[in-house]
Amino acid sequence: MAQRFALMITPVDAADTRKDFSDTFVEMDVSAPALSVGEFSTQRGDGVFESIGVIDGHANEVEAHVQRLAHSARICDLPAPHLEQWRQAVAVAAARIPQGEAVVKLILSRGVEHGPAPTAWVTASPAPDFSAVRREGVRVVTLDRGYDLGAGERAPWLLLGAKTLSYAVNMAALREARRRGADDAVFVTRDGFVLEAPTASLIVRRGDEFITTAPSAGILHGTTQLSVYEYLESRGFRTEYATLSVSDLATADAAWLVSSIRLAVAITAVDGALLASDPALTAELNTFLRSPR
Amino acid sequence: MAQRFALMITPVDAADTRKDFSDTFVEMDVSAPALSVGEFSTQRGDGVFESIGVIDGHANEVEAHVQRLAHSARICDLPAPHLEQWRQAVAVAAARIPQGEAVVKLILSRGVEHGPAPTAWVTASPAPDFSAVRREGVRVVTLDRGYDLGAGERAPWLLLGAKTLSYAVNMAALREARRRGADDAVFVTRDGFVLEAPTASLIVRRGDEFITTAPSAGILHGTTQLSVYEYLESRGFRTEYATLSVSDLATADAAWLVSSIRLAVAITAVDGALLASDPALTAELNTFLRSPR
Repeated sequence: MAQRFALMITPVDAADTRKDFSDTFVEMDVSAPALSVGEFSTQRGDGVFESIGVIDGHANEVEAHVQRLAHSARICDLPAPHLEQWRQAVAVAAARIPQGEAVVKLILSRGVEHGPAPTAWVTASPAPDFSAVRREGVRVVTLDRGYDLGAGERAPWLLLGAKTLSYAVNMAALREARRRGADDAVFVTRDGFVLEAPTASLIVRRGDEFITTAPSAGILHGTTQLSVYEYLESRGFRTEYATLSVSDLATADAAWLVSSIRLAVAITAVDGALLASDPALTAELNTFLRSPR
Repeated sequence: MAQRFALMITPVDAADTRKDFSDTFVEMDVSAPALSVGEFSTQRGDGVFESIGVIDGHANEVEAHVQRLAHSARICDLPAPHLEQWRQAVAVAAARIPQGEAVVKLILSRGVEHGPAPTAWVTASPAPDFSAVRREGVRVVTLDRGYDLGAGERAPWLLLGAKTLSYAVNMAALREARRRGADDAVFVTRDGFVLEAPTASLIVRRGDEFITTAPSAGILHGTTQLSVYEYLESRGFRTEYATLSVSDLATADAAWLVSSIRLAVAITAVDGALLASDPALTAELNTFLRSPR
């Protein structure tokens, strides 16, 4: 089994012009103490992150992930990450797990209380085996996210478009889904529109059209959803960003949750009612998502 | 200047009957690495916390704080904390800063990814000097919290009554307040009711009646607010839990933000409009809040 791996990063200014950032990385024992208790990531969930899928040592969608890290940092008033520094850190981490599926996590924290600067690190670890769920799909329940569709644009301090470390609600929603006998959740606005899953994007099929919730609804713009859209467009399908009601999901011709590590999984039931699925297309999507991009 | 101090805690089962828990505490250098990067507190803001005010080595409202820690843990499906173990940890930490004002923080995290158990620690550090703000008060802006008044009861997975480590929104709201030239924020529901500040409770005065938002609105039940209510009742005032609109706040005879470390500060302006204040009563409240309880 591949070892888990961590790299502490000394963040450099976004304008730094050097070419090689390897001297800003320090390898860590992943299970050894590395962070002080004064870390704002741990005290306040105050930081941003990304999870990148790695297949046989190749990190996928790196550019989309580092760009989204920068987008999240901007929303959270964190110093702009130096994208090339992060790209190099991802490459070093991904290369450490040359076989099988793995996950590389990027974390940029506001830093240590009373400290001078943000802290940052990257980890790599083998991914769980998701082959069964990719084949069999997930039953979801819809869970109220409390917000209405306009909250994200109206109130940017809610950080709805940022992938922050404050994920306690996302984790609680997954526990609630399991309590209800389901595998995953789909968040729904107070006014009845579906948003996203706690750790995945939602894509719905209606005929030959594929629809996902517009990021302006206060959700993350899914990196895997972007890749799936590129693939579907290359196959001649229409793709769209729109608002989707709960009944649009319940009456879809098929629906998927897509994310960087678990990849594409079919939704087989919504709140206990069965949903049609398309195992051949799901397999095709996952073959594509497992290919180097 | 007093040293900062940290104590790692090995959480014991809530049913543990021993009397002395000192052998479950390990003193740490607060600036040394203590936590692994696999910590769910840091990866997901997945844990709960409390901040206890300490005056000259005496920790105030310890019982209310450990009870709320247990309440938060219950909402988050964390193992029940052993209250006596936490009381003893608080006493050890508070004693380390025998003079002046200090803060003792209690943190209970879901633990390390792939790990067997929650992690827990307590820190003690000198408090900032809040004497000026206690005298001069704060200007607040009202900020939309996105939720309606019923969200907390309707959707417990939003964890609204728990003091979780996922505080990125609270921190973003304070930055937004400063951007608007204010000192602090008061969260408002989508349907126009005031809730609480990002790190304090709100108390409004109308004649001889003092009103605070009912915890059922999806806010924390403030430990300092409870103490202030006890004091006000002993002085013959009426106290009440209710719903309060933004205009109830803007037209109040006085209003305060109260919290464990900063204690009672008068609100002197709401969204740029001046609010009456009562410096004598504010001073009286702070004299009470600085006394051992």
